[in-house]
Amino acid sequence: MNDAPLIPLSPILYEPVVRRALEEDLGRAGDLTTDALIPMDAKAKAEIVARAPGRLAGLDIALAAFAMVDGSAQWRKHVEDGADMAAGQRLATVHGPARCLLTAERVALNLLGCLCGVATTTRLMAERVAAYRARIVCTRKTLPGLRALQKYAVRAGGGVNHRFGLDDAILIKDNHLALCADIGEAVRRARAYAGHTVMVEVEVDTLDQLRELLKTDADAVLLDNMPPGTLKEAVAMVAGRMTTEASGGVTPDTVAAVAASGVDYISAGFITHSAPNLDVGLDFQIDP
Amino acid sequence: MNDAPLIPLSPILYEPVVRRALEEDLGRAGDLTTDALIPMDAKAKAEIVARAPGRLAGLDIALAAFAMVDGSAQWRKHVEDGADMAAGQRLATVHGPARCLLTAERVALNLLGCLCGVATTTRLMAERVAAYRARIVCTRKTLPGLRALQKYAVRAGGGVNHRFGLDDAILIKDNHLALCADIGEAVRRARAYAGHTVMVEVEVDTLDQLRELLKTDADAVLLDNMPPGTLKEAVAMVAGRMTTEASGGVTPDTVAAVAASGVDYISAGFITHSAPNLDVGLDFQIDP
Amino acid sequence: MNDAPLIPLSPILYEPVVRRALEEDLGRAGDLTTDALIPMDAKAKAEIVARAPGRLAGLDIALAAFAMVDGSAQWRKHVEDGADMAAGQRLATVHGPARCLLTAERVALNLLGCLCGVATTTRLMAERVAAYRARIVCTRKTLPGLRALQKYAVRAGGGVNHRFGLDDAILIKDNHLALCADIGEAVRRARAYAGHTVMVEVEVDTLDQLRELLKTDADAVLLDNMPPGTLKEAVAMVAGRMTTEASGGVTPDTVAAVAASGVDYISAGFITHSAPNLDVGLDFQIDP
Amino acid sequence: MNDAPLIPLSPILYEPVVRRALEEDLGRAGDLTTDALIPMDAKAKAEIVARAPGRLAGLDIALAAFAMVDGSAQWRKHVEDGADMAAGQRLATVHGPARCLLTAERVALNLLGCLCGVATTTRLMAERVAAYRARIVCTRKTLPGLRALQKYAVRAGGGVNHRFGLDDAILIKDNHLALCADIGEAVRRARAYAGHTVMVEVEVDTLDQLRELLKTDADAVLLDNMPPGTLKEAVAMVAGRMTTEASGGVTPDTVAAVAASGVDYISAGFITHSAPNLDVGLDFQIDP
Amino acid sequence: MNDAPLIPLSPILYEPVVRRALEEDLGRAGDLTTDALIPMDAKAKAEIVARAPGRLAGLDIALAAFAMVDGSAQWRKHVEDGADMAAGQRLATVHGPARCLLTAERVALNLLGCLCGVATTTRLMAERVAAYRARIVCTRKTLPGLRALQKYAVRAGGGVNHRFGLDDAILIKDNHLALCADIGEAVRRARAYAGHTVMVEVEVDTLDQLRELLKTDADAVLLDNMPPGTLKEAVAMVAGRMTTEASGGVTPDTVAAVAASGVDYISAGFITHSAPNLDVGLDFQIDP
Amino acid sequence: MNDAPLIPLSPILYEPVVRRALEEDLGRAGDLTTDALIPMDAKAKAEIVARAPGRLAGLDIALAAFAMVDGSAQWRKHVEDGADMAAGQRLATVHGPARCLLTAERVALNLLGCLCGVATTTRLMAERVAAYRARIVCTRKTLPGLRALQKYAVRAGGGVNHRFGLDDAILIKDNHLALCADIGEAVRRARAYAGHTVMVEVEVDTLDQLRELLKTDADAVLLDNMPPGTLKEAVAMVAGRMTTEASGGVTPDTVAAVAASGVDYISAGFITHSAPNLDVGLDFQIDP
Repeated sequence: MNDAPLIPLSPILYEPVVRRALEEDLGRAGDLTTDALIPMDAKAKAEIVARAPGRLAGLDIALAAFAMVDGSAQWRKHVEDGADMAAGQRLATVHGPARCLLTAERVALNLLGCLCGVATTTRLMAERVAAYRARIVCTRKTLPGLRALQKYAVRAGGGVNHRFGLDDAILIKDNHLALCADIGEAVRRARAYAGHTVMVEVEVDTLDQLRELLKTDADAVLLDNMPPGTLKEAVAMVAGRMTTEASGGVTPDTVAAVAASGVDYISAGFITHSAPNLDVGLDFQIDP
Repeated sequence: MNDAPLIPLSPILYEPVVRRALEEDLGRAGDLTTDALIPMDAKAKAEIVARAPGRLAGLDIALAAFAMVDGSAQWRKHVEDGADMAAGQRLATVHGPARCLLTAERVALNLLGCLCGVATTTRLMAERVAAYRARIVCTRKTLPGLRALQKYAVRAGGGVNHRFGLDDAILIKDNHLALCADIGEAVRRARAYAGHTVMVEVEVDTLDQLRELLKTDADAVLLDNMPPGTLKEAVAMVAGRMTTEASGGVTPDTVAAVAASGVDYISAGFITHSAPNLDVGLDFQIDP
Repeated sequence: MNDAPLIPLSPILYEPVVRRALEEDLGRAGDLTTDALIPMDAKAKAEIVARAPGRLAGLDIALAAFAMVDGSAQWRKHVEDGADMAAGQRLATVHGPARCLLTAERVALNLLGCLCGVATTTRLMAERVAAYRARIVCTRKTLPGLRALQKYAVRAGGGVNHRFGLDDAILIKDNHLALCADIGEAVRRARAYAGHTVMVEVEVDTLDQLRELLKTDADAVLLDNMPPGTLKEAVAMVAGRMTTEASGGVTPDTVAAVAASGVDYISAGFITHSAPNLDVGLDFQIDP
Repeated sequence: MNDAPLIPLSPILYEPVVRRALEEDLGRAGDLTTDALIPMDAKAKAEIVARAPGRLAGLDIALAAFAMVDGSAQWRKHVEDGADMAAGQRLATVHGPARCLLTAERVALNLLGCLCGVATTTRLMAERVAAYRARIVCTRKTLPGLRALQKYAVRAGGGVNHRFGLDDAILIKDNHLALCADIGEAVRRARAYAGHTVMVEVEVDTLDQLRELLKTDADAVLLDNMPPGTLKEAVAMVAGRMTTEASGGVTPDTVAAVAASGVDYISAGFITHSAPNLDVGLDFQIDP
Repeated sequence: MNDAPLIPLSPILYEPVVRRALEEDLGRAGDLTTDALIPMDAKAKAEIVARAPGRLAGLDIALAAFAMVDGSAQWRKHVEDGADMAAGQRLATVHGPARCLLTAERVALNLLGCLCGVATTTRLMAERVAAYRARIVCTRKTLPGLRALQKYAVRAGGGVNHRFGLDDAILIKDNHLALCADIGEAVRRARAYAGHTVMVEVEVDTLDQLRELLKTDADAVLLDNMPPGTLKEAVAMVAGRMTTEASGGVTPDTVAAVAASGVDYISAGFITHSAPNLDVGLDFQIDP
Repeated sequence: MNDAPLIPLSPILYEPVVRRALEEDLGRAGDLTTDALIPMDAKAKAEIVARAPGRLAGLDIALAAFAMVDGSAQWRKHVEDGADMAAGQRLATVHGPARCLLTAERVALNLLGCLCGVATTTRLMAERVAAYRARIVCTRKTLPGLRALQKYAVRAGGGVNHRFGLDDAILIKDNHLALCADIGEAVRRARAYAGHTVMVEVEVDTLDQLRELLKTDADAVLLDNMPPGTLKEAVAMVAGRMTTEASGGVTPDTVAAVAASGVDYISAGFITHSAPNLDVGLDFQIDP
């Protein structure tokens, strides 16, 4: 599991996402129900609560929604991202105009539920491989527009980030190889193209391909869709000369078997594209 | 189930989302792997294929990613959104520069997999209530920035849309009632505030509340978290005087029991915040 | 007239409009005149004053321009949106750097004059129908980019909002009917397409069409361009079974005659596309 | 009147405005009515028609709305911006999918009606001063976000543009003078600050001020709120040594009296902030 | 040299540039190095220091980067834009979280180094012509996206701004003349097109052209690429009837010779497109 | 030198920069001079020409400016980015409306001149180290908003890219080390934080620091500001165990001496923050 301390995401990276979500929810007319029923001067308190156990991620991001709706909203956090939450646990208490709390509620919870979902699923997979060397890594299979936030949630869940886009690492897949003489040539061209700050990883499907790859100076190999036995054999062949990563439809149910092979990393699109939302809610109380 | 024909989403609504997703994936340096390995003049064909059975949604949206990366990309669609797909079924064939197909692939599949996931889960729930009056409706529990697209996918899955934001219908919940004398007063104020184009719905938790609500001219009632028996009783009490909607942690496993109550609509955050991604892939072949 | 209390527009909805207006006015070089003549440390006071009588709308929005230009600007409001103003009445007093007051002045007054103009014209029409049942509603005939703000000003003027866009209510017009078998079929398809949160209104030009419409379960009828006599007959035919709305080139001069028919609503593009600007000014005084 | 040929506005300047207007109207769900009722394959023809006489401005801008909604829309223009239109005159014929024509209609007409309104009012004032030297100029009293478009419409109406923002000319007003020793000092500082590409104009309210100004090398004088007699005297005093401009609540009713003074320019906020919308419509016909 | 006091650039004009620069540097994952190594609670001090002598421009703009990364950052400025800096001189001291100082450092220095480079090169040229009438003006040859900031730096360097874009002054060049009967006709059409707030300047290459131009009422002449002797002759011919500007590959080495001709202005693309960066650095110290 | 073929930058990455530059130049009123003088139907030809020898970069990017101003502009390129240009060499011929060519000219040339300047300076430095192992790499010292474009130009000049932002590689500098026990601890924490796709480089100033660093598994060392002798010694100490990079105020004059040390890479902010603009021009000819 990733034991590096979890560092908060910079507001520069998440504020545009929160603002866009508020604009999406308020539309052109704003919060009709609150406008119709809630007096301007009513103050209230909102407890943000985990309705299910899981791993916390995105609390600052969710709280930013309240601040954007009304700069006078204030809060106290009871836990920090990266903590494990029990069902019913209070996460933060927000004080402010009742109107603000009601208007920002859904955007805040949508962000929080999504990111806690990612962190919780990541953590589940990380726990299941805790006995092994393998660490869980995410992929580029993220929800459009939410990559930086979801990758942060993966870190909060004890996972590690793979590349953030097409531009920060080279990953040569079978479709790329279709236009190269052989793996050796592909790696040479990748090295010639990229500078020294770019890691080169190559996806292989067979041990024959792996054998060929081991003659190159690639940094890492992605062992794709190999059965456990083959995977184990592959790890033995690599023998520490490259970083090894396994992938291929990995889920919480199958991850332990993959980890048993001894690979360094297991990548799973599941934790970002299919993690179920974690149920978080808001207990609201009018200030007397 | 929703039998209205499915109408394509306007590009005005989805193009900014696709562009943002491409910018997110290409970052500052672009597709390093493709740049290193794929010649400018290589042409290729890509089959977009369903790897699992499900309901199609988002094909035009996904294809737009190819067109944005390279205006010379062309395609033929083999099915249209709203169709049921078998595992292995070809959805569209894209022709164009190999570089374009490889660069746009992940963004296209992320969009398609997410939206097919929503449509497929919606359809599953819609099927399970097919014997009943109830139709499946979505909520505002959508992924930040993707509401218009996810709500479209709900329609593709045979569901119906609830309100799109805080501003296009009034939904009075318990927290709003906390500041009103009673339900009757709340509905009166809502009517007084909103014009005649705005529907007023009220959430109730008990039959007593429902009784009070039935004295008003609200358009609909949201029966929240009621056990099946109570729900049935509630529907009987309403007796067609208002639209009835049931909600509360509804999943594919529990939806049929809810529908058996006779409600008009069942709303489920599950179909937008927790629908697993549908596995879609791209079979790539260099043109000789 | 609309007696619901006027609720301030959320800054989420107006801040981008104000910022765009400032960028439009400051261009690339900023306020040359102020830069050439006004010392950095000069403080001043500005009274925002109504030069003509009317209905106030947009004061917070106008004041936001000063805050965006210089965060140290401060103000006291003497009245609130929705109030009736006498000619010469002070609306707010702004204190701050003289440079800020001079630079933001025009953007603030342009916003305020436009929105007060809408509110004042709306109020005029609302007064002229005060003896009748009818309430004044706006249309989608708004100034491009200013819809949310203008619709807010309509509320400030005692009017009611019709739909905010093509997406929050169904309004079937003659051009839509051209492709349907008949009105009944059109309403059925509209209902089948939209969820229960969407109101369905149908425009009719003749009593025959109205007769046909009354056989459907549409929520409202738009009686378009009917002479007063016909309109009265139409309202009688409807007899409360649907909401009635009259439209067609309505101006302050003709609105009372339309209201005399007994319709529920009168919609007028005039109040948003042709309301003359209300004269507001800024009395400036250097702090000694 | 301005006889320079009218040059079309660059799409770089108007496309963002049109796109924003479409996004504002389509919201999150798109055109519900059209989606519910109009088949994908229905083709139609739309005649854009002047319902009232006036001066045309904004036709290309309005047509861009159709192209943005559906790239397959095509049109023929029957007149060009700057032409005088009779009531009932056809302006352009648009062919395309019926859905596109119906969805883009309101945005197109809102833009066109607003800009024709500005052009028509400008032209009216220009005509009323045709016998005099004076030309009509606009001000910075424009609708927020629409300045470039409204100033273009002023040109279409035979008016001339004053500065486009705070940054492209210096206009010293009374509030600026409050912080200068005298007018001479103010003009000197303005000249010292700005480069040779920036014109310096000074607003004066009295003949005494004017006398002082005439000792400077300012380029122009703004004679503000002077009664006709004084204005005439002022023009005589200037005797061609500076450009003269008159301003102060000028309307179509008062403009001729102002022009009789012999001033070079008359500026009127009225033509941009209070010009009534010109009635334009769309005659729609399904292609058989 | 320009002796008008230097007025700070409005944040409305530079904040979007700073934000874009931060987003460009933080990418999707943020500052990995700082996240890996710097504790959340470490406080630090950063001295912003000139490493080379020069003219200061952009200090507020650079400091805004720290404030955007962390609102708790605070600073004291030791000098103001427009001051001359010695090598080693401290410009400002920033206090705040160590993480903030490290993350914003490069964006702040990139902005500051670029703008000081422009100001310093401008000042160098201004000094070299100090004995002459000529003032240094910038051109539209600016770095894409940085025009307002670079033109501000020109002012800080003692230069004067020429037009800011294609839209705030008319400059008739040889390519424009290719489509006019003659220079007189060109100036007449320019005057007829533009309002009185727009200056008309004409570029000439020969004394014959200049002779023709002097018959018109153009405001200024751009004497392009003339050898010193011809330039002097040209200035004599103009004899103060128009503003004179010389241009054509002017560098710090050649500017004095140009100024000796007696022209009013010398424009140089060099100061904005080729000014070398001024070396500025940040001395960082952890607070104990 | 970098012999990997130069791959064009994706339009996704440069189109927003070009559009912003056009909006910056056209302002609110567009190209006044062209509007005043150039007929709508005049066609012209423009040769884009190198006025000085150098390395080409940004031709597609510059041409995009013409296409954005008028979609009917067409061109033929005579060379491609990455080619060496002689003074006077034609780069591309653009045909289109004379108005389009004149309006887009400056934006196109500003982009092209800037990027050719970067490529040419990079190439100069690359040539000067051609006899050595060293390759030239860029830094994060780029012009705000132009990083992706400038880094592309570095590739065109035969250089290699270092990291694109704070988020795609770890570079531990002295200020980071101030908060770590020692270099070993810093590298361990960096590795623990980042995934396997992130390269870790450490800056050292002394051979003692280098000795310490060589005990870690860092990927690369940045030898900062070392005199040639020390640098040579450092390279010998590393003996191929890590990638070596030298930096510190490197210019074309000093780069060969640095390269003689045998380092793998030499990084130079100079090529992006101080490269003089390359003189490119446009020869314009009206089509008869």
